[in-house]
Amino acid sequence: MELVKNAVGRLVPTEINGEKAIPYMGIGKYQPEGRKYSTKIPSNSNYPLDGNKQVATIKEALIKCGLKDGMTISSHHHFRNGDLIMNQVFDIAKELGVKNLRWFPSASFPCHEHLIQYLEDGTISHIEGSMNGALGKYTSEGNMKKMAVLRSHGGRYQAVQDGEVKIDIAIIGAGTADPFGNANGLYGNSASGLLGFALADSEYADKVIVITDNMVTFPCVPWQIQGNNVDYTVKIDKVGDSSKIVSGTTEITKSPDRLLLAEMTAKFCDKAGLIKEGFSFQTGAGGTSLAVSDYFSKIMKDKNIKARFARGGSNKYLVRMLEEGQIDYILDGQTFDLDGVRSMAENPRHTWTSPFTSYNYHSKGNFAGIVDIVILGATEVDVNFNANVVTHSDGYLLHGIGGWQNCLFSKTVILPIPLFRDRIPVIMDQVTTICGPGELIDVIVTERGIAINPLRKDLIEATKNSGLPIKTIQQLKEEAEEICGIPEKPTYGDKIVAAIKWVDGTVIDCVKEVSTKNK
Amino acid sequence: MELVKNAVGRLVPTEINGEKAIPYMGIGKYQPEGRKYSTKIPSNSNYPLDGNKQVATIKEALIKCGLKDGMTISSHHHFRNGDLIMNQVFDIAKELGVKNLRWFPSASFPCHEHLIQYLEDGTISHIEGSMNGALGKYTSEGNMKKMAVLRSHGGRYQAVQDGEVKIDIAIIGAGTADPFGNANGLYGNSASGLLGFALADSEYADKVIVITDNMVTFPCVPWQIQGNNVDYTVKIDKVGDSSKIVSGTTEITKSPDRLLLAEMTAKFCDKAGLIKEGFSFQTGAGGTSLAVSDYFSKIMKDKNIKARFARGGSNKYLVRMLEEGQIDYILDGQTFDLDGVRSMAENPRHTWTSPFTSYNYHSKGNFAGIVDIVILGATEVDVNFNANVVTHSDGYLLHGIGGWQNCLFSKTVILPIPLFRDRIPVIMDQVTTICGPGELIDVIVTERGIAINPLRKDLIEATKNSGLPIKTIQQLKEEAEEICGIPEKPTYGDKIVAAIKWVDGTVIDCVKEVSTKNK
Repeated sequence: MELVKNAVGRLVPTEINGEKAIPYMGIGKYQPEGRKYSTKIPSNSNYPLDGNKQVATIKEALIKCGLKDGMTISSHHHFRNGDLIMNQVFDIAKELGVKNLRWFPSASFPCHEHLIQYLEDGTISHIEGSMNGALGKYTSEGNMKKMAVLRSHGGRYQAVQDGEVKIDIAIIGAGTADPFGNANGLYGNSASGLLGFALADSEYADKVIVITDNMVTFPCVPWQIQGNNVDYTVKIDKVGDSSKIVSGTTEITKSPDRLLLAEMTAKFCDKAGLIKEGFSFQTGAGGTSLAVSDYFSKIMKDKNIKARFARGGSNKYLVRMLEEGQIDYILDGQTFDLDGVRSMAENPRHTWTSPFTSYNYHSKGNFAGIVDIVILGATEVDVNFNANVVTHSDGYLLHGIGGWQNCLFSKTVILPIPLFRDRIPVIMDQVTTICGPGELIDVIVTERGIAINPLRKDLIEATKNSGLPIKTIQQLKEEAEEICGIPEKPTYGDKIVAAIKWVDGTVIDCVKEVSTKNK
Repeated sequence: MELVKNAVGRLVPTEINGEKAIPYMGIGKYQPEGRKYSTKIPSNSNYPLDGNKQVATIKEALIKCGLKDGMTISSHHHFRNGDLIMNQVFDIAKELGVKNLRWFPSASFPCHEHLIQYLEDGTISHIEGSMNGALGKYTSEGNMKKMAVLRSHGGRYQAVQDGEVKIDIAIIGAGTADPFGNANGLYGNSASGLLGFALADSEYADKVIVITDNMVTFPCVPWQIQGNNVDYTVKIDKVGDSSKIVSGTTEITKSPDRLLLAEMTAKFCDKAGLIKEGFSFQTGAGGTSLAVSDYFSKIMKDKNIKARFARGGSNKYLVRMLEEGQIDYILDGQTFDLDGVRSMAENPRHTWTSPFTSYNYHSKGNFAGIVDIVILGATEVDVNFNANVVTHSDGYLLHGIGGWQNCLFSKTVILPIPLFRDRIPVIMDQVTTICGPGELIDVIVTERGIAINPLRKDLIEATKNSGLPIKTIQQLKEEAEEICGIPEKPTYGDKIVAAIKWVDGTVIDCVKEVSTKNK
């Protein structure tokens, strides 16, 4: 396989699973050509005139969709670790003797460990989509027959829109649907809030199946998925395990270290003048991020100002700010807890977005660039501010990209991260995998100091007399190494197990097989 | 020009303005080939990262969009006769010396009479879109240089989606918008309710301009038009004359004749067993239709039942039924009065639809077929139940098709029409222009009797002992002729001035130039 050095100096393949791949060329450098992908023109004459597309079972729907060897089957991850559908779908594929399917989920979760048997027996050839947990380990150890491809949420939309990934059958699980195929995630026993990650699938897949456990009489209002794009609908007993869809227990961190990180992050934003009337922010989920929101809320109360909008995944802290009038709007891409689901269903200022509106780089602009402050995580950061979110320092691919790459286009990108984890430094000379180029990452906040990207002279100037512990990233790296030493790098096999796409579909890095001695 | 006889026996052209046209083949007979049209893949890198796409003037936006000879300029008609934008757009085109533009509005109104000068001087080559009033007369008299093309609302979406009409620049006037291009018609001084008629334009046009007089800080929520599809935004003083956008005076007819028609229509539906728990209906605007809604409301109260949904254009009578709990949902395609605008902005059960969801025949089903009862008008009906909505019996093209053709797919289609107008029979041997094939039209209600299409044996059976004046359509025609005589047919010139498309893009009929002796 030919490898070429891309614009961030990484050797990447020029071909992925037999198709041409373009190495990363720099931010905004790759100019796409051609037209968006489009589906065959359907005709109402081939669909039931009364709008009733319901069939009895998932199996019947799959057979009617012409399931066969080599197809691409897509799904969304709004049910997260509570998904009860996709294991069934591939059980049916196995039963029907279908082989070499490509699974194209927006993310996979530990509940999908069940599918390893199908990767083993050839029912599934490979997975393209973020892999959390066992499937990531399986892939890292070189067991998947083809190369995995990881994309951001926006990158997934881009890939489908641009025809890089052609979906044969889209499986859309929904909290509520009608027999025509209109669907939402707002109501029912398996409510997940949004269904935005299935939007591209519904628009661009050849065949679309909507599966629900709460089939209502037409019309299912609101329709997050439009039945006009749907071929078949199915009612089953249970599409998701609601206790795992939303935990209901997403809480602010109690760790003093993480609270400190969150407080320093909020203080930095304040001192840098970023928290001002009408500003906007995105903090994401996770204990530290939630704590940042909470600190923002306090600062905003003190200053008596409000934010124009916050971007989610939403959670009870953002919902409280919305309800108390501290935020005009929540623009929500997914929903992390039950308060988020409730608020989205009842509050018109809690507006749903999609990877198209928020993140698609191949559109006429998206929302990410409009956001003032974005708080993100990372597994590793290098001295050039390049960051990694997919692999650990032991080389294992254990996380997805999510909206992380897309959010890097926001006006100020801040990564609150511990200086080291399990005595392994988080700041280093070279990250294991580059997921985002350093020029888009503005500030690294650690418990021992804050490093500002030298490109952001404005932030350096604004905080120079702030009393905050501003250091260079080199200083932070050295401090970490003084404490932990420089850990030995893992060794790798030759096989490339995963390609990491940038938001424009080019390849920014790849992940190699973890060598047996590290397994 | 070659003319061939189509499946309803009309001679139609096989070429329209130099492009191939397919004669109507029968309901559901034409199977489209190929893929939907798609736009060039854009990149965020060519749009302002902060999302601000605002330019100073419409002229600047048009120049940035590369306005040039021969382009297709589209617009929506949600401002109806209060549109203040499109005359300006073509004034600018004239000023810039641009020629041979095709105007592709979803409908034109009397306020656009201003544009006749540009049809005369070659700034505009022709109009494809429903023409109401002066432009219709101008076209009928053979003055437009190319052939007009009339499509239903769903047919317009289909034509754009399928690439039959490629839009170079879409002009989208909006009651409210943000600088990114998100827009809605719900708020502002020029609120029009919906913007759904501009949906296809926003999705498929090469360049999209949003023009508003109420520019709000991002985000404009809700977004009926997604800014991600928009190239430029412009703020002007006034986009629409609100008194003409919604009249605020749409009232039930006071004419005893029309009230009788409405009452007979409602009684027929009741006796035929069509008004039952969970049924659905669409009545449209106009004094008679409004009266039908009102009679429905009374019958439903008497029976203590409610409807699952009503389809609009909505108006205060439907809104009252929604608010009193007689209807679960209004699914609204446009908004005919101020109560409709208000209700849509504040009531989540008042849901907006688009020509895609409601009417597009080249989709995987649409809403029209799900509706139980639809009440429509017609200028003429023939003894085979074929009906006309675009021309008068004097041959003049004076109306658009609207959603009329699309609604014919509903379960029961009823046309309440007077037996004659101005002493000209409305029921005849052959209609001037066939807009809808008789097999889709179920019942004709006139003040002197009700004719049921022989295909609907179920309705004939259900109403045979109802006491209603059920007659054959032949009987009704003869009664009309006994009173009025048989009027002389108008004579026509050779020139075909307009093609009438069916919902699948085929040509169902055409309109010839009114000969000088009729002018």
